[in-house]
Amino acid sequence: MKKLQKQVDAWVSRYKIGYFKPHEILARLMEEVGELAREINHRFGPKKKKYSENEANLGDEMADVIFTLVCLANSLNIDLDSHFQSMIKKYDKRDKNRWERK
Amino acid sequence: MKKLQKQVDAWVSRYKIGYFKPHEILARLMEEVGELAREINHRFGPKKKKYSENEANLGDEMADVIFTLVCLANSLNIDLDSHFQSMIKKYDKRDKNRWERK
Amino acid sequence: MKKLQKQVDAWVSRYKIGYFKPHEILARLMEEVGELAREINHRFGPKKKKYSENEANLGDEMADVIFTLVCLANSLNIDLDSHFQSMIKKYDKRDKNRWERK
Amino acid sequence: MKKLQKQVDAWVSRYKIGYFKPHEILARLMEEVGELAREINHRFGPKKKKYSENEANLGDEMADVIFTLVCLANSLNIDLDSHFQSMIKKYDKRDKNRWERK
Repeated sequence: MKKLQKQVDAWVSRYKIGYFKPHEILARLMEEVGELAREINHRFGPKKKKYSENEANLGDEMADVIFTLVCLANSLNIDLDSHFQSMIKKYDKRDKNRWERK
Repeated sequence: MKKLQKQVDAWVSRYKIGYFKPHEILARLMEEVGELAREINHRFGPKKKKYSENEANLGDEMADVIFTLVCLANSLNIDLDSHFQSMIKKYDKRDKNRWERK
Repeated sequence: MKKLQKQVDAWVSRYKIGYFKPHEILARLMEEVGELAREINHRFGPKKKKYSENEANLGDEMADVIFTLVCLANSLNIDLDSHFQSMIKKYDKRDKNRWERK
Repeated sequence: MKKLQKQVDAWVSRYKIGYFKPHEILARLMEEVGELAREINHRFGPKKKKYSENEANLGDEMADVIFTLVCLANSLNIDLDSHFQSMIKKYDKRDKNRWERK
């Protein structure tokens, strides 16, 4: 994630406005998760696609969610890699007996 | 809410497809909450409105969220009024000492 | 909804802090929608329930979502009933040919 | 992201249950985004923290969101890196004149 965080920071740094406030980025995150949800329903659910809507892509919507999340992390000086690695360790412990192993 | 639940049921009942599955309605709910989030950012946040987007209305987006939630409740035979009233009672108890009274 | 909006307003009015800012209520809405999502996965999905979690109720989670939404509407002086009725009319028009009728 | 996607896949592969269905992972994503929203309100908003709640960490909640998203991507064979890079290019084009440059 480090490379991603730097890449996003380079992009945001070109603009005067900089990072939004945490609540504003969160609202944006909800918007992007909502667009991903729409795409999930289009592909795997019952919703008829309206013709006026451009063909969006599940992978693109996921990238938008990650971008927004990386903005939030950058704006708060959070190193996502280290949190991700400690989470994997936590899951290892917590879920040891939660799901049946192969 | 009873009137609303009946009204939505009358509307849905006209169509063959009926209510979606719980997970599908939930995805739709996320979509609508995402559109409300976008509108909140447009009005109270930093996001420049794109010209191609139609002027949406905060109240309309809220109505969409409620509609989706009422669909979910109807599809599961849930009486929202009774849950709402018991929730108000629960809040009364729980928050008695949580916020300073006037 | 009018009765609900008044009831929530009476409840909030007892406390000094009053309504939160739109972005703060929106964050709370996401929190409540997330709890509803968890409940949906518990009932209709694959997630094993952890013993430490209290038995929550789908209807209660929906009531929490509605409460939060009503707070947002009240704080912005939005009359949900009128928006709901105009939305039903809009859906009537838009979806006339979208879903097959019975 | 490639390393992350492989790491998550190695973790999931140890369990018989495997990846959930797209709608189920989406519900989980909403749950995790909701927990992040709660944390944002705790730190930057008005919500008094209840004593019974464990101190959670903004970075940990973000890691949970990313984990869930990576599960969704893996289950659908989506390469997040390539979508992320094409998104950055798209943003470059789209936002060229949207925000004032430094």
